[in-house]
Amino acid sequence: MKLASRRKGRDGELLVVARDLSSAVSAAHIAPTLQAALDAWENVEPALKNLYALVNAGTASGQFTLDQAVLDAPLPRAWQWLDGSAYPQHGELMATAFSRPKIEISFPLMYQGLSHHFLGTGGPVPFPSEEDGIDFEGEFAVVTSDVPMAASRQTAAESIRLLIQVNDWSLRKLAAQEVKTGFGWLMSKPACAAAPIAITPDELGSAWRDSRLHATLEVRRGEEIFGRVPANEMAYGFDELIVHAARTRDLCAGTIIGSGTVSSSRYAEVGSCCISERQAIEMIAHGAARTRYLQYGERVRMTSYADGISVPLFGILDSAVVRPAT
Amino acid sequence: MKLASRRKGRDGELLVVARDLSSAVSAAHIAPTLQAALDAWENVEPALKNLYALVNAGTASGQFTLDQAVLDAPLPRAWQWLDGSAYPQHGELMATAFSRPKIEISFPLMYQGLSHHFLGTGGPVPFPSEEDGIDFEGEFAVVTSDVPMAASRQTAAESIRLLIQVNDWSLRKLAAQEVKTGFGWLMSKPACAAAPIAITPDELGSAWRDSRLHATLEVRRGEEIFGRVPANEMAYGFDELIVHAARTRDLCAGTIIGSGTVSSSRYAEVGSCCISERQAIEMIAHGAARTRYLQYGERVRMTSYADGISVPLFGILDSAVVRPAT
Repeated sequence: MKLASRRKGRDGELLVVARDLSSAVSAAHIAPTLQAALDAWENVEPALKNLYALVNAGTASGQFTLDQAVLDAPLPRAWQWLDGSAYPQHGELMATAFSRPKIEISFPLMYQGLSHHFLGTGGPVPFPSEEDGIDFEGEFAVVTSDVPMAASRQTAAESIRLLIQVNDWSLRKLAAQEVKTGFGWLMSKPACAAAPIAITPDELGSAWRDSRLHATLEVRRGEEIFGRVPANEMAYGFDELIVHAARTRDLCAGTIIGSGTVSSSRYAEVGSCCISERQAIEMIAHGAARTRYLQYGERVRMTSYADGISVPLFGILDSAVVRPAT
Repeated sequence: MKLASRRKGRDGELLVVARDLSSAVSAAHIAPTLQAALDAWENVEPALKNLYALVNAGTASGQFTLDQAVLDAPLPRAWQWLDGSAYPQHGELMATAFSRPKIEISFPLMYQGLSHHFLGTGGPVPFPSEEDGIDFEGEFAVVTSDVPMAASRQTAAESIRLLIQVNDWSLRKLAAQEVKTGFGWLMSKPACAAAPIAITPDELGSAWRDSRLHATLEVRRGEEIFGRVPANEMAYGFDELIVHAARTRDLCAGTIIGSGTVSSSRYAEVGSCCISERQAIEMIAHGAARTRYLQYGERVRMTSYADGISVPLFGILDSAVVRPAT
């Protein structure tokens, strides 16, 4: 299935979207919001699947032509956002560029992030200062069902309800201050943006295997293709990230768990999904970063593709960095 | 006003509680849940105040004798939990005991914590292993309205809707591993518990000034009074903690911002609000910690008192540490 949330109130209105993204229909009579659907998934999934069949046949009552501009993030607010850092190439480049020791741990890197607001596509994204080092991070994430504490890897894999695509906005100069505290990221991690379409794993065919998404993430900065990065080098699958997240705590339905910035060992050829990684590559190659952080007015556009699927997997995530309204 | 949530579904049912905590009445006809009330505070506050006057007069329709055991946490799940570390005495003891350098930053320490579940009073609290260093942390927190990014200190102060009392459960041995990552606390910070009653600042009279709560937090471990600690040494007021939290991001209605473990420079006399701090005091005095972490079966009870108020400010937060069900 493909699901989305039409902009409405704080949580949006649940839509079922046709496989080719051309049309959609309200599913509010089944569950008013995507969070409500996730809270009662076993009860609502059959009705949602029926509606998905109708919308794909073009025969759903109330079906309308879809303009992605009406869509908010799939979960405009979520109860939990835990972001991993599961692409080792990204970590190695950053550590090398900044001469930092490798982090010696036996578990996945993961932080608890702001979840009460996920920005949608098309909207301006205000940041308080260009001096904070405004950066994007293109990545994928899963949305889970309820997961019990100390869940097994199999339980974790079965808890994956949806996949989404995330831009984890980051303020790099504030991150450099916050890393000193050990308390994690707060000022340096404002609200993420999410592409408008959430998809169930069964939509992906062979592009979903080993609890990993085998897709390519394309990131454009203005007209430039900044990266067209295959997402096939995760050190941990999403099942393992969920096991880690649930090691000492229950997860609630609607928990979003991110992969961290998609990164490839073929970075010279395929590019990067964040500015900071490209700066690290430049520092290693030339001794200094050449690419600057985002300035007000710049646009970032992220889309994902998988073999055999003709449309962007998650729709188009398009954002403009702006000065805040005063 | 005093508000609470009766156990019901994922978010509880909103109650208005009499000032003396002896009785309560459902406010579900005004707002079904406390989160719903916070989402629409300006619209619902007058009706809640009217109901509070009736319940204090003993004349509210449907008023019932209150057994705190029927109460959940005020917000059984919240969109955001940001926990400060605003009592400098606590940080100094920990740094001295572990010979750690002082963290050189110009902003309050704060981390983003798990918010999708706050445990209520009276229930068993399962932890996966006694070997993880199970500890409590007694502290206070505020619940805010929507707060715009880059809010002023005055806006922040005016955004404080409610105060609550929190036990920030911590797994110290996992924290020692996680601090190395810079990514903050995840495994080491399972769900917090919250005392059942939320109160508006105007209930506190002179015990609420300078955006600080001037109360005493009593922590019992079993029959032992572990601490009876005056909460009057916050280095930052809650207004300043909110300003920090909103430096680069909007806060949503229902955001909970914690003070961090209450701690006093008179610790030798008044005790501590967490085991880890007492261990630090023992290490400094005797070269080694003598107090052990919690074991399965132990109970922790937290209550707060302010001058001139005859009942515990937030009711009683009573928890039993248990082995998880298998």
